[in-house]
Amino acid sequence: METKLKTAVLGATGYSGFELTRILLRHPGVEKPVLLRRGVEGNGSGHGASHFHVEQPVNLADMFPVISGNGSYPLQPFSWELLKEQGVELLFLATPHEVSRALVPEAMANGLRVVDLSGAWRLRNAEHRAIYKFHDDDAELAEKLTGQAVYGLPELHGEKIAKAKLVANPGCYATSVILALAPLVKAGVIDRQKGIISDSKSGVSGAGKEPTPKTHFVSVADNLSAYAVFGHRHLGEILEQLELNSGELIFTPHLLPIPRGILSTVYVHLNREMKAAEVESLFRESYAGKRWVRVFATPKLPEIQFSVNSNFCDLGFVLAKDGRRLVIVSCIDNLGKGAAGQAVQNMNVMYGWNEQEGLQ
Amino acid sequence: METKLKTAVLGATGYSGFELTRILLRHPGVEKPVLLRRGVEGNGSGHGASHFHVEQPVNLADMFPVISGNGSYPLQPFSWELLKEQGVELLFLATPHEVSRALVPEAMANGLRVVDLSGAWRLRNAEHRAIYKFHDDDAELAEKLTGQAVYGLPELHGEKIAKAKLVANPGCYATSVILALAPLVKAGVIDRQKGIISDSKSGVSGAGKEPTPKTHFVSVADNLSAYAVFGHRHLGEILEQLELNSGELIFTPHLLPIPRGILSTVYVHLNREMKAAEVESLFRESYAGKRWVRVFATPKLPEIQFSVNSNFCDLGFVLAKDGRRLVIVSCIDNLGKGAAGQAVQNMNVMYGWNEQEGLQ
Amino acid sequence: METKLKTAVLGATGYSGFELTRILLRHPGVEKPVLLRRGVEGNGSGHGASHFHVEQPVNLADMFPVISGNGSYPLQPFSWELLKEQGVELLFLATPHEVSRALVPEAMANGLRVVDLSGAWRLRNAEHRAIYKFHDDDAELAEKLTGQAVYGLPELHGEKIAKAKLVANPGCYATSVILALAPLVKAGVIDRQKGIISDSKSGVSGAGKEPTPKTHFVSVADNLSAYAVFGHRHLGEILEQLELNSGELIFTPHLLPIPRGILSTVYVHLNREMKAAEVESLFRESYAGKRWVRVFATPKLPEIQFSVNSNFCDLGFVLAKDGRRLVIVSCIDNLGKGAAGQAVQNMNVMYGWNEQEGLQ
Amino acid sequence: METKLKTAVLGATGYSGFELTRILLRHPGVEKPVLLRRGVEGNGSGHGASHFHVEQPVNLADMFPVISGNGSYPLQPFSWELLKEQGVELLFLATPHEVSRALVPEAMANGLRVVDLSGAWRLRNAEHRAIYKFHDDDAELAEKLTGQAVYGLPELHGEKIAKAKLVANPGCYATSVILALAPLVKAGVIDRQKGIISDSKSGVSGAGKEPTPKTHFVSVADNLSAYAVFGHRHLGEILEQLELNSGELIFTPHLLPIPRGILSTVYVHLNREMKAAEVESLFRESYAGKRWVRVFATPKLPEIQFSVNSNFCDLGFVLAKDGRRLVIVSCIDNLGKGAAGQAVQNMNVMYGWNEQEGLQ
Repeated sequence: METKLKTAVLGATGYSGFELTRILLRHPGVEKPVLLRRGVEGNGSGHGASHFHVEQPVNLADMFPVISGNGSYPLQPFSWELLKEQGVELLFLATPHEVSRALVPEAMANGLRVVDLSGAWRLRNAEHRAIYKFHDDDAELAEKLTGQAVYGLPELHGEKIAKAKLVANPGCYATSVILALAPLVKAGVIDRQKGIISDSKSGVSGAGKEPTPKTHFVSVADNLSAYAVFGHRHLGEILEQLELNSGELIFTPHLLPIPRGILSTVYVHLNREMKAAEVESLFRESYAGKRWVRVFATPKLPEIQFSVNSNFCDLGFVLAKDGRRLVIVSCIDNLGKGAAGQAVQNMNVMYGWNEQEGLQ
Repeated sequence: METKLKTAVLGATGYSGFELTRILLRHPGVEKPVLLRRGVEGNGSGHGASHFHVEQPVNLADMFPVISGNGSYPLQPFSWELLKEQGVELLFLATPHEVSRALVPEAMANGLRVVDLSGAWRLRNAEHRAIYKFHDDDAELAEKLTGQAVYGLPELHGEKIAKAKLVANPGCYATSVILALAPLVKAGVIDRQKGIISDSKSGVSGAGKEPTPKTHFVSVADNLSAYAVFGHRHLGEILEQLELNSGELIFTPHLLPIPRGILSTVYVHLNREMKAAEVESLFRESYAGKRWVRVFATPKLPEIQFSVNSNFCDLGFVLAKDGRRLVIVSCIDNLGKGAAGQAVQNMNVMYGWNEQEGLQ
Repeated sequence: METKLKTAVLGATGYSGFELTRILLRHPGVEKPVLLRRGVEGNGSGHGASHFHVEQPVNLADMFPVISGNGSYPLQPFSWELLKEQGVELLFLATPHEVSRALVPEAMANGLRVVDLSGAWRLRNAEHRAIYKFHDDDAELAEKLTGQAVYGLPELHGEKIAKAKLVANPGCYATSVILALAPLVKAGVIDRQKGIISDSKSGVSGAGKEPTPKTHFVSVADNLSAYAVFGHRHLGEILEQLELNSGELIFTPHLLPIPRGILSTVYVHLNREMKAAEVESLFRESYAGKRWVRVFATPKLPEIQFSVNSNFCDLGFVLAKDGRRLVIVSCIDNLGKGAAGQAVQNMNVMYGWNEQEGLQ
Repeated sequence: METKLKTAVLGATGYSGFELTRILLRHPGVEKPVLLRRGVEGNGSGHGASHFHVEQPVNLADMFPVISGNGSYPLQPFSWELLKEQGVELLFLATPHEVSRALVPEAMANGLRVVDLSGAWRLRNAEHRAIYKFHDDDAELAEKLTGQAVYGLPELHGEKIAKAKLVANPGCYATSVILALAPLVKAGVIDRQKGIISDSKSGVSGAGKEPTPKTHFVSVADNLSAYAVFGHRHLGEILEQLELNSGELIFTPHLLPIPRGILSTVYVHLNREMKAAEVESLFRESYAGKRWVRVFATPKLPEIQFSVNSNFCDLGFVLAKDGRRLVIVSCIDNLGKGAAGQAVQNMNVMYGWNEQEGLQ
């Protein structure tokens, strides 16, 4: 880490982008990141939570006083020239998926490495991708880049991420569900016929910064609601990563009256009788050496508070007395391991650093 | 309703008992209820949230200023003599289950009708009952009374409740789950082999008024936790009422950072392909004329806010495109339809009144 | 109450308007209110939280499932003809102040009585009114109507309200502050030289239903913020009603992370040494017979929870040992006594009914 | 910082003590702290939130899973021998004030330096101290130590703290109020005759970890309450530090429905007309070089969210147009600058380190 890495963040004013910026600012291997805004003159599309129409550089600390008192953080208009001038090697996109989809081809052409926090490049299966309604300018190129993109879950794809040009940072829900299930799927112990269920609950920052009737305080407080049943965008990722058929998993998201954190309660029937110790070993071995996954000793279960403001994914489980029915609880911070933390973990892997660097 | 019914409430200082008292106070068919406290000289056991050791009558309005400014609500020491003197016909027990278990035999001997809000008399199956660790003074009598007790879910057992001497008011979670599943179970459309799952979430008042580390504001706020996985006391009720084997249902409660309300997300595999309209009809027909169950037009789903502070159970569902997998969302107020509201609804049925009386 | 009063509500889809509608629906003296929406063809202005652009009548129960299951509540396009046809006598305006300002002249001309929940007609003093930036079509008429409007605080102006054509329903903050101070001001016991302070805190529904960055759940939760220091619109009302000079009162609103409720902590220096009992008597006598004001026995203090979902204003106080410095705590529900409840209380007074009618 | 400082924490299981432990664990100048528990055999008194009666060492990570996954944190029974053996130089007391009062004399005798987070040693004035009801074994010694103790507000007493043996870490409320007022008091611009008011609001962690009816989630959520009006323990500290007479300040604490954070709204009348720029300069100059105080450009005001999870005290203000009336808003994290963060800042000053060390 002699010379520090030059990075840029596009979309630093959204929840994930701001969280990412804060982590990068204290990461010992990284220079103060170039913070970019999409403007009228910009190359990006016009939509998204992070647009604004000022001409002058804006100080991020004015928008987020939490980081004030320690210098200034100007947001500069996005341009490829600026990235070049600044010697940026790694570009983080915390942008709406349409924007990421539009920008990545040129980023690749410019020799940048990219960690994209949107859903633009996570899905191989065109059927799963349909939900995003992409309009690629060059469909062939987009297909090629899709093939090259690596799904950025370091616990599963560390080696590929290390070499990747384009890392598709996973969805928050998807991270919590995939990490809960991957060891069991890989071990082949699930009775898939009986169906797997993930009943997932997320804090409101997962819904983005856009003020809507759904995110109004009065709509959320003292409430709980299920939404996008059988139709959430993260379902495709989960199915692809776990190699499940669409009929084998039900994933139901719920909106919790808390700012951040996800808890997924995952239900699985085993195809043979197991002992709790055996299940625990399976989890522990699967995540041996993976510092960002904590396996709880059964029957202790993680709670959202334990992993909020961290990059941890906490996993715990209870096995029924019949040794056949398993309830797994998986907790993450949707802005941590579910977005910005994981993006930095991916960067650490991409540059051969310790996975914990800058994240503690 | 010429002459008003004389009722008494034991345990008016707990969450359910207080809610019950408030409803009774505005019920047109009921006199101002006799409010009872268990004291040193009392016949009840010493434990429970509603004990206190003062000699003088206590004004409930001093403990709950929300009802102040409208006269006084003295709490009198419990005694059978007092109930007799006051001409009480119907006794509500909002007491810990041990207390209810101990008091009901004498209440029956004294010719009172009883609505018991605890778990003391809900379960026929001794195996399910084991979790409560009852120590009956007269086991034979207790068994006999258990047989006579009617499970107080008016939508299912209205006729029996009308004649009942002893009504066992259902558990809050159980109410939300049973009403979500009863139509499907009765219609025989569930593929039980694949297992039914109820992922249930409750507000903190469901955990009672006792201050504990688990109910401390700082433990609950910004958090979500699962608990009692495979081992919650309401599981037995659900199994008995739906006539399910214990292996056929997983019920997982969670503690929500809200004061009141329950949302159960219930997962079912159907044993034949159905259409959404068919499922909706099934629900609508099952609850035709049942004013306290609201069936939502699919794919609209209830939210906790819609039924809080009411006696409604709201039901909605989404059916997968394959016509085989069904997600039902069931919402109640745990202190309303899940406790005090339902107790009053039971009273209405017991005395031949309109089920909505006093509950609107 | 033989024949029921015919009322209409314009703006039933906002927080106050919906709360008002719910109260009117259960008020024994009132017919089911005519619910009105402002449309493209409407006479009202285009702004405000309650606009929508559908042609068909909308069922309010579809927008607020909390009232579903009990018939339909169609929203009809506003027109003076409709009001006439329906025989409406009393019109409630739960509209932005510009809309109220624009509609009231014609309502008066049509012989309607009006209770206006906005700030349009509360202020006599043009200087105070400047903050609203009214653009009256007929300035002279507007001035005349301003003179006729009665400030709808029944505890202070009951007799005038009884005869009023146009009642200007008070602001929520203003209600909490004025009721806390009126007895002391009237008794002349305040040392005004030292300044009066009201540090007021409100739940988010007070900020209206419009989704904004300020009302986003993530902005409000786990937070507290002061705003509009020295410049809140309710300041003028408070000054006028208490006949204070602008330099004599500081009023600071804060946004609380709760859906509803206001607590004002009011600080006063007395101009002579008093005893707590004397202060308590002053409050009790001032509000003798006023059923919607509850005076707490010192040093007990009201909390927001005690008056939420009610029409009560709760008042309590603590006097310093020096007998000179007084802290008064005043709590209301901003949608109850602070808006819809008070509007109904005003109606009760206007029609000679019991002030509690429909509000219990 | 070649050799690291050896510290110990007594009371690591309370909110402040745990927060302190977390900060020390990542502080570059400090070895992993010795974590102590008071036991049956211990020298401390029996009360307080952090007692437990186990014989075996307890792993703090088992009680606080948030720090699990990174080794073990055994709690050892407190004894002076252990501190000696471990070479502890600096002892942090996160204990009830009676315990701190009892332990400090021996700590001093043993040559330890102490940072005490309780109220035991903050007050010189015996009248102010009366509220704590201390029972000193050796009253003379206690008086002497009281005289030696330094009030640990580094922005005011940095030089004395640097040399202190015993640092009395300020109260959370007191910190927020004193820092808001100190520049104005020192400059002599306050009209004290008119009285100063601090209307302060705190999150629930400030009330400690003990589960009580007041800290039950259902009591706090959707609520706000004032308490201890004219009688809070922190009042004495504020008066002493600002050299005010008791009649010159009203301090009213309120309990907010949030886990952590304090906002104090402070009201002051100036004794001469000032301009906002002049007031801002006064604040900026007073805190020049003080990195943990952030002065906001008027009229921007701090919010609780901005300083939560930090050691910042954020100050902002609005001056009335008359140039005479000033509202100051002061925000801190009650567990950060209000307790553990400040304790570490004090340590940094005591050992000549950068005040920001370990706190970023």
